[in-house]
Amino acid sequence: MSGSSFGKLFHIVTFGESHGPGVGVVIDGCPAGLLIDLNDIQKEVDRRRPGQSVITSERQENDIVEIISGIHNGKTTGSPIALIVKNLDKRSEDYDEIETHFRPSHADYTYQIKYGFRDPRGGGRSSARETVARVMAGAIAKKFLENFGIKIFSFVSQVGLIKIRSSIDKLNPRLIESNFVRCPEVATAKKMIRLIEEVKNAGDSIGGIIIGVVKNCPPGLGEPVFDKLHADLAKAMLSINAVKGFDYGSGFDGVGMTGSKHNDKFVTKSNKLKTLTNYSGGIQGGISNGMDIYFRVAFKPVSTLRKEYKGRHDPCVLPRAVPIVDAMAALVIVDHVLRFKCSNLNS
Amino acid sequence: MSGSSFGKLFHIVTFGESHGPGVGVVIDGCPAGLLIDLNDIQKEVDRRRPGQSVITSERQENDIVEIISGIHNGKTTGSPIALIVKNLDKRSEDYDEIETHFRPSHADYTYQIKYGFRDPRGGGRSSARETVARVMAGAIAKKFLENFGIKIFSFVSQVGLIKIRSSIDKLNPRLIESNFVRCPEVATAKKMIRLIEEVKNAGDSIGGIIIGVVKNCPPGLGEPVFDKLHADLAKAMLSINAVKGFDYGSGFDGVGMTGSKHNDKFVTKSNKLKTLTNYSGGIQGGISNGMDIYFRVAFKPVSTLRKEYKGRHDPCVLPRAVPIVDAMAALVIVDHVLRFKCSNLNS
Amino acid sequence: MSGSSFGKLFHIVTFGESHGPGVGVVIDGCPAGLLIDLNDIQKEVDRRRPGQSVITSERQENDIVEIISGIHNGKTTGSPIALIVKNLDKRSEDYDEIETHFRPSHADYTYQIKYGFRDPRGGGRSSARETVARVMAGAIAKKFLENFGIKIFSFVSQVGLIKIRSSIDKLNPRLIESNFVRCPEVATAKKMIRLIEEVKNAGDSIGGIIIGVVKNCPPGLGEPVFDKLHADLAKAMLSINAVKGFDYGSGFDGVGMTGSKHNDKFVTKSNKLKTLTNYSGGIQGGISNGMDIYFRVAFKPVSTLRKEYKGRHDPCVLPRAVPIVDAMAALVIVDHVLRFKCSNLNS
Amino acid sequence: MSGSSFGKLFHIVTFGESHGPGVGVVIDGCPAGLLIDLNDIQKEVDRRRPGQSVITSERQENDIVEIISGIHNGKTTGSPIALIVKNLDKRSEDYDEIETHFRPSHADYTYQIKYGFRDPRGGGRSSARETVARVMAGAIAKKFLENFGIKIFSFVSQVGLIKIRSSIDKLNPRLIESNFVRCPEVATAKKMIRLIEEVKNAGDSIGGIIIGVVKNCPPGLGEPVFDKLHADLAKAMLSINAVKGFDYGSGFDGVGMTGSKHNDKFVTKSNKLKTLTNYSGGIQGGISNGMDIYFRVAFKPVSTLRKEYKGRHDPCVLPRAVPIVDAMAALVIVDHVLRFKCSNLNS
Repeated sequence: MSGSSFGKLFHIVTFGESHGPGVGVVIDGCPAGLLIDLNDIQKEVDRRRPGQSVITSERQENDIVEIISGIHNGKTTGSPIALIVKNLDKRSEDYDEIETHFRPSHADYTYQIKYGFRDPRGGGRSSARETVARVMAGAIAKKFLENFGIKIFSFVSQVGLIKIRSSIDKLNPRLIESNFVRCPEVATAKKMIRLIEEVKNAGDSIGGIIIGVVKNCPPGLGEPVFDKLHADLAKAMLSINAVKGFDYGSGFDGVGMTGSKHNDKFVTKSNKLKTLTNYSGGIQGGISNGMDIYFRVAFKPVSTLRKEYKGRHDPCVLPRAVPIVDAMAALVIVDHVLRFKCSNLNS
Repeated sequence: MSGSSFGKLFHIVTFGESHGPGVGVVIDGCPAGLLIDLNDIQKEVDRRRPGQSVITSERQENDIVEIISGIHNGKTTGSPIALIVKNLDKRSEDYDEIETHFRPSHADYTYQIKYGFRDPRGGGRSSARETVARVMAGAIAKKFLENFGIKIFSFVSQVGLIKIRSSIDKLNPRLIESNFVRCPEVATAKKMIRLIEEVKNAGDSIGGIIIGVVKNCPPGLGEPVFDKLHADLAKAMLSINAVKGFDYGSGFDGVGMTGSKHNDKFVTKSNKLKTLTNYSGGIQGGISNGMDIYFRVAFKPVSTLRKEYKGRHDPCVLPRAVPIVDAMAALVIVDHVLRFKCSNLNS
Repeated sequence: MSGSSFGKLFHIVTFGESHGPGVGVVIDGCPAGLLIDLNDIQKEVDRRRPGQSVITSERQENDIVEIISGIHNGKTTGSPIALIVKNLDKRSEDYDEIETHFRPSHADYTYQIKYGFRDPRGGGRSSARETVARVMAGAIAKKFLENFGIKIFSFVSQVGLIKIRSSIDKLNPRLIESNFVRCPEVATAKKMIRLIEEVKNAGDSIGGIIIGVVKNCPPGLGEPVFDKLHADLAKAMLSINAVKGFDYGSGFDGVGMTGSKHNDKFVTKSNKLKTLTNYSGGIQGGISNGMDIYFRVAFKPVSTLRKEYKGRHDPCVLPRAVPIVDAMAALVIVDHVLRFKCSNLNS
Repeated sequence: MSGSSFGKLFHIVTFGESHGPGVGVVIDGCPAGLLIDLNDIQKEVDRRRPGQSVITSERQENDIVEIISGIHNGKTTGSPIALIVKNLDKRSEDYDEIETHFRPSHADYTYQIKYGFRDPRGGGRSSARETVARVMAGAIAKKFLENFGIKIFSFVSQVGLIKIRSSIDKLNPRLIESNFVRCPEVATAKKMIRLIEEVKNAGDSIGGIIIGVVKNCPPGLGEPVFDKLHADLAKAMLSINAVKGFDYGSGFDGVGMTGSKHNDKFVTKSNKLKTLTNYSGGIQGGISNGMDIYFRVAFKPVSTLRKEYKGRHDPCVLPRAVPIVDAMAALVIVDHVLRFKCSNLNS
């Protein structure tokens, strides 16, 4: 109950400090019979690795995923899946000076108050290194969702004040990995990269926005009242380091609209019920309606500035946060796919 | 696990449909010895009641709170607290036509898919009537927090495109209840009311933003990783009907800032550690730092339009949503006050 | 989290004191579409009512079940089901003297320590009155299990030192309700009733054993490691007032056997895998194997003695505890039926 | 939710198969500031190791505990504690023949049904090897309880039909480790060992009873209704492999007593409230009353018989189960110590 657990049926617990022996995750609740191999997980972990480009942290993590339990002969067994990556590169001396004062807008002061002391090695659990564990769990969740034809992707839509111009459905998700900043609008990506380089050279940092998309989500996922699908997505996203905001569908922009414009009219397209517009963002009354789910995640400029601290730090976390947003979205959706099985006697 | 439970230690379950016998809540986890009387709860319920003014729904609910258990001689006993309000005014015939089709941007279609059929009486659990239960539970949570000197309030900061101009710390919370729209900036409140009246006359609806504030929150609340204080607040807010977005501190506006500006520098004021700015919104690394917590909640224009349906509906839910935002914030904070007790051996 | 919640997917919360306005239960997690009417619930509640015979408490409870939510037109809606019975007969003056001292082997002293004070009205939550709520929830669970052909029953197998002689499979469950003591071995039932009458006349009390049986339980229910089916049954039974012990299958008697005798050999009967003996009690490795599940529940002699207190008290709680054992068993099984749905990709 | 989690506030998840890379546990909820070193944990793990004597399995496990996270400089940090032991001795070929049929009274058949296939390597999660994880977590729980002066121990009180003759309070817990069978009544221990040797030579197995004791337990632990202290102990014990029954205090023997004898009269000894007898087993109304807690755990003869299978198997699991009973009891008590903190406003 120290807050390192997530999910009700696809229940995960993460562990590990940035400068201890390693970080990992246990998934208690993955159904048996899911085909998965080490590569499926390693691939996702590689996407969040630092040192991928000039605009991300130079720390070389080279994380190697180890499967400890729950997968046998390329198939989940129904037992808890434990996955670990060892910490290879722990220059804790970089952080020595941290011990003596509280860094602004970090977790140093709040951890001190909460626990009575703090682990000075690179922020302990508040380090973004913990997200490796989420990405590993998310890789399994994504694999699970593939069985249902559900696709999840996300991309950087804004860095500082530079933002994409196309609407989401006009973007080609295959272009996300075509550039360092993970923005599928290539021309905008270039501007973003330039901005990040400037910020980096100034020893400063910059924030931005990631958009997440769930395609082919079956209708019926999400629970009324508290566990609305978008409420669980919001919690998932806000639990990522440096995230300050979340909205879905029309979001904050919808507040200025009138209901008669905002309402998504139902139409029947090739025998399926669709909506003409999608201000609902694929979720109505907290439950998916079969349309695309999309949401925005706002990241602050990270607090650790190269000009103030010796460690190796990203001037902009967004490119590396893309696989983390993917992972957290997948964890939410898979949990609700399982919960859906108990919705009615015939489900 | 149908999604009607909230909170880990201060655990609540709500129940009741808008057109059934009543709605209620059970709180399993309120410590014994808390002084509370019926009035403390009734007062909050009255604040969310429809029919308070010309700009809210004309439905006369006149909800009378009944204490079924857990409070004896004005004190909580440590047993589950059950609170109920009966539904007095159930004109279910108003909703007869709903049965025959799916209203746009409502939960009609998604409930049908999820449960295989649906309760046509006014939306069942998707009705805002369910929030009476949250407000009752929140009243007890607020009472609990008073013991710790923690104050929670919220107000309407924007309706349509009309927004307040002052910064939060310049506003007087005592003025929130001075007008129907619950906006403490009185001149702006008037404009908001005018807009809502226009929208009402057009048979349409309009959205807006509520700002929530937690004052005197002790440092140390919130759990690292998944149960960050702001992540739980986000989930709580997104679980309210018609909410489309949440941010805290600098929020979506922080994405355009650089880290060197965004970082909140520590200073010592009268022997207490404070920050010069508060872009963090009172939370660092997911844990409260003792500064004011503030957050924004975006509401869409409600989907039920008077020009299309006979029922009595609010053209703008925000004024009545204020006590609900209060309640949900209180439920989150009280849960973390209890969780804090297990943070370290000396807490 | 005050301990009044039970079940992971078929999650219930009970509330209400013996001398307050009423007792009730909320079920959060019953799938939609289950046919159920008030009678199904009332029938079970009537079975646990006091005043059914000369050997049970003379308190006339005459509990009337009210459905507050979650059931519409004779069908569960997927929303939380709230059920309440009002307390009609509250002679709290009977308990006045209790306030002044701690009754031996009651919860008076421990409640005082735990909560800092106690609700003197008939024991508050420690009263057996709370079990009405369990029986209501259990009635719904039993109805659910009927859909799967699963049958649950239990009966009194021992009162004091008088015990049944037949093996379980020789007993006719239809005879359980044929006598006041709810023992299907009619001759033994008579002896038990005589013993209880003697004990009653002496103003004393006596304990005994109830045997519970689950028939037609599909194989595969129960989770390895902590949530073994029998571990959840044990917790469920030990949570009933006055219960001191639980065993299943060979139980305490199995400790003197050798493994070669105790092992249940598999055989194929009419194309189904069965075991020749059933020392396993229908559960192997924590998971049901399709054979009958049977278990024993030991009740102490109740602490409230008529010769010492004026209240109306049962000299032997076992006859009235039978429907409570049924209810708790049904709640465990239904929870695991739902959990089974997430065991493997094809379940 | 696959059943490998235990505890509400001191929440653990175990993982690992008997023939995979290793087994481990993550504790999410241990307060910060607890002094603990590797030795405290290793010591307990060594107690459950096979190969300690001629009467236990010859498998040489030589388990080396590794701390992955949550402990820094000999102190818990408040973060999840991950502990792992690698599997060094995996002769999975010993189990090859298992793949082809279902062993009687094992989990082979039920796992097959539940998961659609099974991991044939030594029983996977149904292997007693999983209990290493519990013992590691229990070592931390015991350390935690030491801070409160709470002592937990258990011992073998019966093997087959050979049982101790002294009452519990006459036994010297220091003698538990004086012999291989972990029975503090030394003369009886010798008889037990002789019996186990006979059974071993016959290639058979035998069951027995372990008694657990909690000393200096503060009054007030346990929650009314479902989470009664003894209900949680029951679940904990029944979750251990081969356990068939549990009782506490007078237990199954109390059913033949009358209430007037069974009631534990209160007396004041050196200004403390005590009871003259302790049939309640230290728990009243589900809450500890400050007297010694004691309970019995019945183990069946293990199903794997040396005369039928080549693997190395214990003829009697009880001696090695003693530290597991200790661990599970400690996990229950520590969870309730934490929960007690939320019982009333002053706790």
